[in-house]
Order: sequence, then structure tokens, then C-alpha cells
Amino acid sequence: MALIVQKYGGSSVGDIERVRKVAQRVIEAKEEGNQVVVIVSAMAGETDRLIGLADQITEMPNGREYDVLVSTGEQVAVALVAMALESQGHPARSFLGSQIRITTDGAFTRARILGVDTERILKELEKGTIAVIAGFQGIDGEGNITTLGRGGSDTTAVAVAAALKADYCEIYTDVEGIYTTNPAICPEAKKLSKISYEEMLEMASLGAKVLQSRSLEFAMKHRVPIHVKSSFSKGEGTWVMEEDEQMEDVVVSGITYDKGEAKITITKVPDKPGVASKIFSAVSEANIVVDMIIQNISAEGYTDVTFTIPQTDLNKALEVVRKVSQEIDAGEVRSDSNIAKVSVVGVGMRSHSGIAARTFSALAKEGINIMMISTSEIKLSCVIEAKYTELAVQVLHEAFELGKTKR
Amino acid sequence: MALIVQKYGGSSVGDIERVRKVAQRVIEAKEEGNQVVVIVSAMAGETDRLIGLADQITEMPNGREYDVLVSTGEQVAVALVAMALESQGHPARSFLGSQIRITTDGAFTRARILGVDTERILKELEKGTIAVIAGFQGIDGEGNITTLGRGGSDTTAVAVAAALKADYCEIYTDVEGIYTTNPAICPEAKKLSKISYEEMLEMASLGAKVLQSRSLEFAMKHRVPIHVKSSFSKGEGTWVMEEDEQMEDVVVSGITYDKGEAKITITKVPDKPGVASKIFSAVSEANIVVDMIIQNISAEGYTDVTFTIPQTDLNKALEVVRKVSQEIDAGEVRSDSNIAKVSVVGVGMRSHSGIAARTFSALAKEGINIMMISTSEIKLSCVIEAKYTELAVQVLHEAFELGKTKR
Repeated sequence: MALIVQKYGGSSVGDIERVRKVAQRVIEAKEEGNQVVVIVSAMAGETDRLIGLADQITEMPNGREYDVLVSTGEQVAVALVAMALESQGHPARSFLGSQIRITTDGAFTRARILGVDTERILKELEKGTIAVIAGFQGIDGEGNITTLGRGGSDTTAVAVAAALKADYCEIYTDVEGIYTTNPAICPEAKKLSKISYEEMLEMASLGAKVLQSRSLEFAMKHRVPIHVKSSFSKGEGTWVMEEDEQMEDVVVSGITYDKGEAKITITKVPDKPGVASKIFSAVSEANIVVDMIIQNISAEGYTDVTFTIPQTDLNKALEVVRKVSQEIDAGEVRSDSNIAKVSVVGVGMRSHSGIAARTFSALAKEGINIMMISTSEIKLSCVIEAKYTELAVQVLHEAFELGKTKR
Repeated sequence: MALIVQKYGGSSVGDIERVRKVAQRVIEAKEEGNQVVVIVSAMAGETDRLIGLADQITEMPNGREYDVLVSTGEQVAVALVAMALESQGHPARSFLGSQIRITTDGAFTRARILGVDTERILKELEKGTIAVIAGFQGIDGEGNITTLGRGGSDTTAVAVAAALKADYCEIYTDVEGIYTTNPAICPEAKKLSKISYEEMLEMASLGAKVLQSRSLEFAMKHRVPIHVKSSFSKGEGTWVMEEDEQMEDVVVSGITYDKGEAKITITKVPDKPGVASKIFSAVSEANIVVDMIIQNISAEGYTDVTFTIPQTDLNKALEVVRKVSQEIDAGEVRSDSNIAKVSVVGVGMRSHSGIAARTFSALAKEGINIMMISTSEIKLSCVIEAKYTELAVQVLHEAFELGKTKR
């Protein structure tokens, strides 16, 4: 007998027929002799409907009230799932963040989970009841409702699994698992049977939108194995787990891409201490997250600085940067949002050399110019012209033989 | 400075434009120097939408989960109202039944309020904050969400007003106040400026659907003055309050009608002790509420028993009654749902005579046959053929000169 936490996303409970299917899946796991805890997101479209209501009231809704509003989406979903289970003769109880006490900090709309009180859940599990817990929500120290930000239900699932010391956490989604790259772009993409937390974290932050980064950090810290699988089909998905030897044998596990960034270049920046700090302090104060930064060696006391930011922040960033640029007496400010970041990810990169060379030559062979390069221990990213994204993903997938991957 | 509780029903917050208007009205009351507590129902149509979801899952939804589901309607509404107030610069906070602790018994879908914890509300009021409280919901002793049944937000409003010792409770609705009868049927109908709790209670239970009966019992017990008024226009509505001398001077305050009942007659019932008890115990066990009961004197050891029940329960009731009827060896069971109950209500009836005579002769003049009669201290009800309902209301309104009422 295992203790399993299952998480169903918005598309998995998108309509009543699907809610019923979720109930069936939960019952199967229960009848196999497991204790089952279910985490549910709001029905697909519901959160957007609620946000739409708030938007009609005001552009800047009060954060506390915003959370009271949007948290109803998950409340509806857990009630329906518990109802469906009960109607099929399986004792079930829904729980809100406030009822089992998923405590968070007080940062409305993007709260962080501080703890999960397991007493109530364990009591229900011992009685043979299925606990159905609302994802995405918690309460702060004063009893106010908080929400965790988009994708927060993943974090709820992992946090609950960690607190309960569950055997594993199943994340049901609308894809079959984690692929070597996006199958829509590259038909040779293969489903991975397993991937390490670190790799998944790189993939998540690089644009593969299957798991929220924060949920992965949580899983990694508490060593909760995650099984990502489809809620629409049977069969194994992808295990996200601790690194093992077999993983290291495979040099590269996936190719990801992100078309959501823009780059800004400041030319003729005086090459003296404190200047870079001035630029990036100003950007950070405007709440803009900088991804890659490149600064070449200087010539005649000047250098060019280039960095990337989310496209949605470009206008705000340009305003800030133009101001700083005058203050530090730099040259021009140029921007380009017509870019894409393509990345090669794999824990095997730690112990294998030649990844960079193979990447650059594969891109060069197709005449794709590399504008920026950034590396970490298990990742190599290149910024290229946006129009080459699909081609670059395909040639890199080919170059690292990911279509034949054994993982 | 007064402490006012304002309650807005579903049609008053039916869309975002109306939510904004509610906020304006609340702000006006605040700016006149009052402390304001607002009780809000779910947006019109929302509760039905949620019930529709439950109905798709199962015919008999689990009561606990049903309440988790439908209570989200009010949660959305309070968040939007508080947001609208905040966006106009007025500090406001929404509160759910679980947050201020509106405690109830554990009867899901029709819970009764046991108490209201005022500490949190008073703290907010002292700070100058507007408290926006979800109607219709509470929590039981184990922290489960409960709901009070249709129209329960009125009861929440009165209970909160009573607990806070508020100066009065304003119920905003889609009518201008309480009328001598339904203006749609009788153009001479006049708005009453005041009415006693007892009269309103008779009117509410007799079919005038402005205030939930339970909220009136609460108001009567705790002597909370209620002001029923329109949320779509300015001006005085109707005060529901303790009886005063002026009220007694007016013999009849209103004519109500109810087309929602059906009558069942059992003929040739053996006239011996215990038989009536057998019939009505069986009906009561089937959870059917009996309204009027008539039994004539017997002839030759037999009598006929006639009673009325809600039309919606007719089939269920007939099944039960036919069975009992065989057991007690009675004659036929006949039913008729083509009936209406027309009633004359007024506290002045206590001290004035001749009401019955005036009623019967007004109906007789139009050839309207009376099938059943029932009386209380302040009410006289007649069951007639449904097709005469409007005519009966008009002639009674005329007979008691309600078009000229001075209240």
C-alpha cells in the first residue's frame, strides 16, 4: 500500500464529464489498495472568468480581495470532485487551504507556502476517506485567503506530498509526459521516462510549461518523486526524480526554446567600476527580471552591454535604461524583440565535453547566427533570430541524437 | 452616527455595473457619518449555475460538498464589492462565514445560525473600514462550510445586525418596498410605509416573496428594525418593525395570494381516535409540509379530510396518502392543484370584528366559491379556484379600501 498524492490541472476537470473521469481514476488508485490525496485546480477557463470580473471593476484590484475572488475556482472544483466520488460510493471530503491549514506568507496573489498541517488529512485517510484538497490557495497568519500565483496547484501538490511523506506525487496534465523537445516542432521528439529535478528546473525556466518552477524547488528540497502523466490516457509518463547514473550516461536530455524574451543593447558604456551596477540596479528596481547578460572586453575605455528581459517588460525597461544611459554618459540604446533562446539541457554535460562545439557547428551548418551565449553546469543557451527557432530546435535535436534517446 | 447593516440581494449585484452602484450607495451611507456593514448575496443566476453543475454530477449531491460549492457564489460577490469600494478609495474588507465565524448547526443546505462573532467586525469598523460579509453561509462546529437555504442572506443580515446591536438593517431588493398587494395584479396597490413583524411574517409565509420567514423571526426576537427598499431608486421603502398604535388603527394591511399549493381530500375516513394522526404522521415522514387542514363533522361515523401541501410535493404526497388510506379503510383520495389561497392580513383584525363577513361577501358578490377557510389572530385565508385569484385579490383590496391606506 502506498500513499499517493494526485494532482489534476484545469483541463483535467474542464467539464463535468472530465470531473467524472478524474473520480474514476482516483477510485482505481484507491481500489488498488492505496491511500489517495487529490489536489485539484480550477476548471479550465474559470480563473480567467474570475479575473475578467475583477478587471471590469478596476485595473488594480486590491490583492486581498483578488485572492478571495479567484480562490473560488478551486473551491468549486474540489466540491465537484468530492461529490462525484461520494456519488459513486467512495467516502470523500473536500478541503480548502483554510480548512487543512496550508499556511503561507501574506504576499497576496503570489504567496509562498510556509507549512501544511497534516493532522486533518491523516485522520481522514485513516478512516479510508479520500481527501480532495483545493490547489493554489492557502491562508496567512491572520486568516486571510492567499493564492500562490499561476500554476500554484503544482506547488500545493508537492508541498502536501512532502508534508505527508507520500510515496510519490502524480501530476496529471494534458500531455503524455516530458519530451526531449516540443513534438509540435520536432516530430522526432521522444518522451523521457525519467529526468532529474535539476534538468526539469532548467527546462521549466527555459520555457517548457509543464511544471511550475517553485513546485520543482520544493520537490527537490524534500526529495518527492513526481510522475508527470496524461489525464486522458493510461500508461507511464515521465518521472521527475533524483539524478541517477543512467541519467548521466545520456549527455543531453532535451532541447528547449523561449520566444518570450527581448534584448537590449547599450553601446559605448564607459568601462569603469560601478557602471554595470548602476544599470542593473535601475532595471531591478523596476521589478524587471533580467535573464542573460553579456559584456565584451572594452576597446578604448568603452564597452557594449547586452541583456535579455521578458518581452512584456520591454517598454518599461527601455524607459529605465534610456534614463540610466544618459546619466552614465553611454552611447545608444538599441532593442530587439525578434529573438529566441534555444537551449541544450542535460546532467551528462557535467562529465562530457564538446557539447558547445557540437551545438555551435550544428547551428552554423544551417547558417544560423548566434547573438548571445550563456551557460550553466547542465545547460547551454543561445540567442538567435526568432525566425530560426524551429529549425534550430530540429537540428540540435538531430545533432544530439535525441530521437534515439534511451531514457 | 448610526451603525447600519445593508443587505444587497442577487439582482442588486447582478452585473459589474450594479456592483459599482452598490459600492456608491455604501459610500454615501459611510460619508453621511455612519458605520456600515454590508451583506451580499451571490450575483443573480450564479447560485443556479452552481446548482446546475452539481445536478450534472448526481441527482443527490452530498450535502457537505453542495455547500462548499454554492457558497462560492457569495464569496465572489463580496470580493467584487470590497474591490469596488477599495478602488474608490474606501477601506473595505470582505469576510466569509468562516472568517468572522457565523456559527450554525450542522444541517447542510438548510443550516440555522447559532451565533455571530462580532469581534473582528467591530475591530474593522473602529478603524473606519467597511465590512463586507458573505450572506447565506456559515460554519458548523467542525469547521465545515454550511449554507442557510434560499433567501438565507436576509437571515445573515438580520443576525449580524442583531449581534452588532445595529440601529437598523436595510434590505435592498428589486421592489420599492412592501405593498398592500402585488401591484402587477392590482394597480391600486399602495406601498406601506410600515408594517409589523407579525404581519410581514404572515405575508412572507403566504407568498409575498420579499423577506425570508426565518430572517423575520430573528428580527422579531431581537427587535431589529428592517427597512426594505429598492436598490435601483432612492426614497423610503417600508419599515418592518414592532407594532405601534397607528398600525392597529388600520384593520387590514394587505392582501396576499399563493398559487403554489394543491389540495388532497380523503373521503369516508372512519371517525375514530388516531386516524388523523396516522394520515399526517405519514405525510410528515415523507418530509412534506402541510399547510391548511379541514375536517368536517362526521356523518354516520365517517368524515372527509382535506388538506393543502406544496404543489411540487403532490405526487409524493398522493403515493403516501393512498397507502395510508387503504390501511385505515377510508374511501377515495382526490386531489386538485388548480387552487389558490387568498389571504387578508392585518394586526388591526385583533381588535376589529366583521373582517370575515366582509371578506366572504366581497367574494360572493363575484360568484367566487370558497373551498377552504383558515384563520389566525391577524389573518384570514380562503382557498378558491385558481382562475379567480386576480379577481379575488382585486375585490378584497377594494373591499378593505387598501388603495386609500394611510400607513
